[in-house]
Amino acid sequence: MEHVPDQTINRLPIYLRCLTRARGQGLRVVNSLQLSVMVGTNAAQVRKDLSHLGELGTRGIGYDVESLMAQISGALGLTEKRRVAIVGFGRLGAALLGYGGFADRGFEMVGVFDSDPARIGAVVDRRGGVPTGLIVRPVDHLEDDLRELAVDIVVLATPQQVAQAVAERVAEAGIRAILSFAPLRIRLPEEVFVREIDMSIDLEVLSFHLG
Amino acid sequence: MEHVPDQTINRLPIYLRCLTRARGQGLRVVNSLQLSVMVGTNAAQVRKDLSHLGELGTRGIGYDVESLMAQISGALGLTEKRRVAIVGFGRLGAALLGYGGFADRGFEMVGVFDSDPARIGAVVDRRGGVPTGLIVRPVDHLEDDLRELAVDIVVLATPQQVAQAVAERVAEAGIRAILSFAPLRIRLPEEVFVREIDMSIDLEVLSFHLG
Repeated sequence: MEHVPDQTINRLPIYLRCLTRARGQGLRVVNSLQLSVMVGTNAAQVRKDLSHLGELGTRGIGYDVESLMAQISGALGLTEKRRVAIVGFGRLGAALLGYGGFADRGFEMVGVFDSDPARIGAVVDRRGGVPTGLIVRPVDHLEDDLRELAVDIVVLATPQQVAQAVAERVAEAGIRAILSFAPLRIRLPEEVFVREIDMSIDLEVLSFHLG
Repeated sequence: MEHVPDQTINRLPIYLRCLTRARGQGLRVVNSLQLSVMVGTNAAQVRKDLSHLGELGTRGIGYDVESLMAQISGALGLTEKRRVAIVGFGRLGAALLGYGGFADRGFEMVGVFDSDPARIGAVVDRRGGVPTGLIVRPVDHLEDDLRELAVDIVVLATPQQVAQAVAERVAEAGIRAILSFAPLRIRLPEEVFVREIDMSIDLEVLSFHLG
């Protein structure tokens, strides 16, 4: 696949959700205009985005919902299970583990780490429909454990002060994808993809609309 | 202010963060190229985005960091404190209350609600540097309580099954901005701005990069 713009990558999961919904409503074919309305962009952008995935759709007819979903899932690597570990098992880490949306989407939680002795060794229960039975591990052998567990993605939910240091150890273990909830900029070699979630940004966008 | 495109609104908080960082590094003036590198877009887009806020910057020189920050903060309504309530005080709600990033940005947590009798009445402690002392209220008088507390924004952290019904009550109370963590599409009259956070989308974007 040629170079795909970040904005396009960011929209692919949204297309997938809209297509899932469309399929649920019985649609078998959608055109770029319909998709654009669902996603909140314009038809030209939809055609451009999807052209990165190959020669899809039929002019004057549209896209076959089922095969477009398969194409996007394939591009996103969702056809295989992704193994995820959470580092930092405070309230946020616990909330993330219990978040049903991950398992539904093929992300498997395979490890949980914390540095607090009081939390280590606790067997994580099954809540929010997510089957766990995971044991909270100490961070002492984080690098080895991440390799042994064949983790693909690390979710960083540590306190802010240690986030950078922990992220460096995660990168050291060969992990190439980190989802960070620490409200600061994580700096790592560019071969590691870091996605930062800053929920106050969403509140600020809402605040704009309040005028 | 004329109509501002959604994409521009979404970038305003990012500009603000980059400017805060730039100011911390001693920069007093930035040009659109520098800003575009920090934000991850291009210089033309920066100029277009900021033109929505008025006649800013000086051709050939750039933008005064301090006054641009003030302009953006003003546009985002961050010059006044925004009053926020959390509905649903499970692990996610508790994690959100403890999230330091909100208070830092001028969002004040003024109310916490839950339907579980075991959680109601509990005094919320102060964690993550956020001063609280809030009491978890029942949802029985949610509409009246939201009005009485003069809430601006509601963070919806309820179980998925009740999210739509709770959101309708929140809208009924006159709230015009909702940040929803429920992994489903909330449907409300269009005068209510709903921003949905679906963290599995971020994992999917990371998954793309793993190839």
